[in-house]
Amino acid sequence: MTPEEISTFFRDVFPEADSMFAIESAGERAAVVRLRFDPDHHVRPGNTVSGPALMTLADTAVWVALLAEIGPSAHSVTVNLSIDFLRRPAPGDVRAEVRLLKLGRRLAVGDVLMYSAAGGDPVARASVTYAIPSGDGRGAPG
Amino acid sequence: MTPEEISTFFRDVFPEADSMFAIESAGERAAVVRLRFDPDHHVRPGNTVSGPALMTLADTAVWVALLAEIGPSAHSVTVNLSIDFLRRPAPGDVRAEVRLLKLGRRLAVGDVLMYSAAGGDPVARASVTYAIPSGDGRGAPG
Amino acid sequence: MTPEEISTFFRDVFPEADSMFAIESAGERAAVVRLRFDPDHHVRPGNTVSGPALMTLADTAVWVALLAEIGPSAHSVTVNLSIDFLRRPAPGDVRAEVRLLKLGRRLAVGDVLMYSAAGGDPVARASVTYAIPSGDGRGAPG
Amino acid sequence: MTPEEISTFFRDVFPEADSMFAIESAGERAAVVRLRFDPDHHVRPGNTVSGPALMTLADTAVWVALLAEIGPSAHSVTVNLSIDFLRRPAPGDVRAEVRLLKLGRRLAVGDVLMYSAAGGDPVARASVTYAIPSGDGRGAPG
Repeated sequence: MTPEEISTFFRDVFPEADSMFAIESAGERAAVVRLRFDPDHHVRPGNTVSGPALMTLADTAVWVALLAEIGPSAHSVTVNLSIDFLRRPAPGDVRAEVRLLKLGRRLAVGDVLMYSAAGGDPVARASVTYAIPSGDGRGAPG
Repeated sequence: MTPEEISTFFRDVFPEADSMFAIESAGERAAVVRLRFDPDHHVRPGNTVSGPALMTLADTAVWVALLAEIGPSAHSVTVNLSIDFLRRPAPGDVRAEVRLLKLGRRLAVGDVLMYSAAGGDPVARASVTYAIPSGDGRGAPG
Repeated sequence: MTPEEISTFFRDVFPEADSMFAIESAGERAAVVRLRFDPDHHVRPGNTVSGPALMTLADTAVWVALLAEIGPSAHSVTVNLSIDFLRRPAPGDVRAEVRLLKLGRRLAVGDVLMYSAAGGDPVARASVTYAIPSGDGRGAPG
Repeated sequence: MTPEEISTFFRDVFPEADSMFAIESAGERAAVVRLRFDPDHHVRPGNTVSGPALMTLADTAVWVALLAEIGPSAHSVTVNLSIDFLRRPAPGDVRAEVRLLKLGRRLAVGDVLMYSAAGGDPVARASVTYAIPSGDGRGAPG
């Protein structure tokens, strides 16, 4: 799937994601996804982008990289997410750069570095494991 | 801090958390926090509670257990969160049970099991590490 | 498999594990495994049990709990391990208490708390995800 | 510290590490460390490099990158390690490439990709958080 096809797929099955994220690129086992900062929802005490917004960004960005490889599937599910918060991002957009380190028949693992769109060192790092459903499309993990 | 004091503190510094979560108990290095399910915001394709809602629950529930021990501080920051998604919760409230496994001068670690309020086996497990700021209250992690 | 059967299986396929660990109990989606402390191999600067020894204990203890459920299989493989080191154990045996939080067709997740055999608060916490091979026994993860 | 100084330091405080690992480079918030494969100790059923050997490699490689920055200290301690096992390495040396993503006053976070020395895609990915002791050198984490 191309970035445009993934955006269209998001609008269909997951409209909240489409308004929250911009897909800058997807393909070749990689993706760049940008959190569109919304001061009404993504702020945490201390005037920084909230941890939950960064976790949602990491989860979604790996899903984008995966959809680009395996095609439209609403059934892949996250089985593990681990995130290190490195420094506080200034309020504003955050860019996630994903590499798929593994794309197996049943599991995919993506590595994510997140940066303030304003630049600087990474603000967070995450790894996310997705279970890919078998052909029957039931999508039950494990 | 008591559950009531923590709720009041949330309303002051983090009103979104106060409407999203109910603090059922807090103290003795433990807490029980309930995600008030909101079908407009917490659903994911497949009609289940979204992963980001569960991650936000885990992060907040450990913060509640920490606030009960160290008093009001908006400056403690999450440095690591690792979550295993175990099974899909039915749409509805989710209860997080936290134990603080470590409460040091600089780091606290909480372990979280999450259950559908409707009952059954755990739907997710998480561990969350918070950095506790020094007395100067500047709150910069690391 | 019973603890005795698992010990025999270890001696066959993984003799190093048999000398390093004592299986105290296994079954009912749980296990207790004890690291037999060896001052020649498990010490780290600071006179404490090494982190690698604790990681090996966590990984093995979840495998023991899994073998008790699914029978002898050398093909299950760890896909993720996440560990929090909570406090330094005194040199000596360490006891790992495992609960299997998930036992699916393809993935199993175990939660581990580790304690100095001498007693006290937990010294480490880990979660470990195993991929369970399909019936063909090839055991390739993912 | 240079790679040579770190090797000397290892021989003094942690001789097992010196024989197990070769430090190929260290400095500029990065390091490359090679596990010298030992078929008597690092094999797991399935004729692959054991998970514990890879975890020890990840932990040590981040320590090397940290020592290169902060100088000799036996007191820094690992507080969290999270590893994804991506594919089975063939028996043989494994090379770990570390980047320090954060080097704070109290916490350092390193990201590790591990490759078979024979080449190919990464066999494992890990992130490791170290607590850096305060000036008093007591080294108690948290």
